[in-house]
Amino acid sequence: MPTFLSLLDLLGTFVFALSGAAAGIRHRVDLFGVLVLSFVASNAGGMTRDVLIGAVPPAALTDWRYLGVAALAGILTFVWRPDVDRLQQRVVLFDAAGLALVAVSGAHKALAFHIDPVIAAVLGMVAGIGGGVTRDVLLSEIPAVFRSEVYAVAALAGATVVILGELAGVHAGAAMIAGACVCFGLRVVAIRRKWRLPIAVAREVEESAERRDS
Amino acid sequence: MPTFLSLLDLLGTFVFALSGAAAGIRHRVDLFGVLVLSFVASNAGGMTRDVLIGAVPPAALTDWRYLGVAALAGILTFVWRPDVDRLQQRVVLFDAAGLALVAVSGAHKALAFHIDPVIAAVLGMVAGIGGGVTRDVLLSEIPAVFRSEVYAVAALAGATVVILGELAGVHAGAAMIAGACVCFGLRVVAIRRKWRLPIAVAREVEESAERRDS
Amino acid sequence: MPTFLSLLDLLGTFVFALSGAAAGIRHRVDLFGVLVLSFVASNAGGMTRDVLIGAVPPAALTDWRYLGVAALAGILTFVWRPDVDRLQQRVVLFDAAGLALVAVSGAHKALAFHIDPVIAAVLGMVAGIGGGVTRDVLLSEIPAVFRSEVYAVAALAGATVVILGELAGVHAGAAMIAGACVCFGLRVVAIRRKWRLPIAVAREVEESAERRDS
Repeated sequence: MPTFLSLLDLLGTFVFALSGAAAGIRHRVDLFGVLVLSFVASNAGGMTRDVLIGAVPPAALTDWRYLGVAALAGILTFVWRPDVDRLQQRVVLFDAAGLALVAVSGAHKALAFHIDPVIAAVLGMVAGIGGGVTRDVLLSEIPAVFRSEVYAVAALAGATVVILGELAGVHAGAAMIAGACVCFGLRVVAIRRKWRLPIAVAREVEESAERRDS
Repeated sequence: MPTFLSLLDLLGTFVFALSGAAAGIRHRVDLFGVLVLSFVASNAGGMTRDVLIGAVPPAALTDWRYLGVAALAGILTFVWRPDVDRLQQRVVLFDAAGLALVAVSGAHKALAFHIDPVIAAVLGMVAGIGGGVTRDVLLSEIPAVFRSEVYAVAALAGATVVILGELAGVHAGAAMIAGACVCFGLRVVAIRRKWRLPIAVAREVEESAERRDS
Repeated sequence: MPTFLSLLDLLGTFVFALSGAAAGIRHRVDLFGVLVLSFVASNAGGMTRDVLIGAVPPAALTDWRYLGVAALAGILTFVWRPDVDRLQQRVVLFDAAGLALVAVSGAHKALAFHIDPVIAAVLGMVAGIGGGVTRDVLLSEIPAVFRSEVYAVAALAGATVVILGELAGVHAGAAMIAGACVCFGLRVVAIRRKWRLPIAVAREVEESAERRDS
């Protein structure tokens, strides 16, 4: 079971690293930048959570396999880029699985460090989305996760299930499996049905547009 | 007194969160992004200070009221945005009060963690301005605090008063009230009199402009 | 010897701070922004390393000389900018020396905190390049270190020499001198010979360019 979890965790790292490498190539950064973005996209979320809860050095820095898997994903994307690129469009399911896993284990770890349950759920979400946010900040873009897809919300839902389950005395493993299913399912349904989060249109913009029109 | 301080602190959080939410709406991020920016704008400064002085988990993660107040400000801004937006232009005084409070309590906390006094004053300022800086970085903008208003300087002045007062043996509460008055007063006077910080014009730019003109 | 090391360290801080101040002036930030960028460019790398390995408060916050040297560099650049600007173009050698020193001492410190050796080498590199990355993120630019010069690679090479040397039982001082020479030498040769890291061209871009051409 731990081996299986650890394998899933490394698979999630790999998929997230692909997204970092692909984003770097799109912005024409060099090989080094691609490797940094691979690592950051796959590990910055968990590292942020670990620094905030005081679990230093973060897991990503005590187990070189995270660095290794991220570097492998980066090099593969750099060398066989076209194929990996096409793969990535089909990889949405893997990404949803990675998100589910990281969010769920993130919430579990925060709770184990005696963090307030509400915050622990948020930290699970942070672990899930933090890598993508850092990737986008390094590339000087507004984080993709703010762009109205149901992504962070799915992570938060999964993390909440874990927290509620563990508080209710459910076995941690069972709570995590349930949480991962909720996150994964919500994300997949949201993609299929094209659910979007609402956006508020700034009134200034509206008004100046009206003035321009009239 | 602690209740009063705590109330002021939450009010400061609320005002800073309004600025984060308004900035998010201006950049057309989704509801989730608005909530993240609300939280970040109001808490990232204090969290940065706490991580740097080793006070983890940061206060913003051990007391869910900070998250709650930030979320409330974000939702209010999202739903009744026009009114909150207009409110925010009148809210400069609240923002100055929030800045004063956060800078002053930030310096006090750093000193209590046995940080070098010079650095403790700087960390007070970091607590005051860090939220706005992180908000702007997430929105891919150069931090507003670098744009020549007397803002960070007011925070630094208030924090310095706290440090000097506490080093001179003044009661911490009195030092913090004095520091808050200095920060708040300096900020308000600077706004009224339109004081600006100097900007150095890059010589290259000057020269190429001259060449273009001639 | 410690005095000499400490002097070199402060010299490295000064040179890195010059780069931060110059970048700030180029982006027309105010005097405060120039000082922040000076500090960040010279200390954010080491601070990131310290936070990640749990060495808080970071060295840059326990010794006010780092803050002082960074502020001095910022003010000098702001006031006598043209001269410092011209100086900086000649300062590439100092920058290479700063990089070598910071990367090497960064790796040494990470190893002393019982970090996995592979990761310790990476953290040495992070200490060396982190300041420049943070400077560029604050100015809303893609980090210069991703732009194909041999910079981070030189830092990583120097850090690796330190780690290998210390693991092989070489005296830490000797390992650090060897590592610094490798980093400095590699950086200088790379500048002279204009070595570049490879960049992968995104296929989409290629294809749309072809379509436009035909």
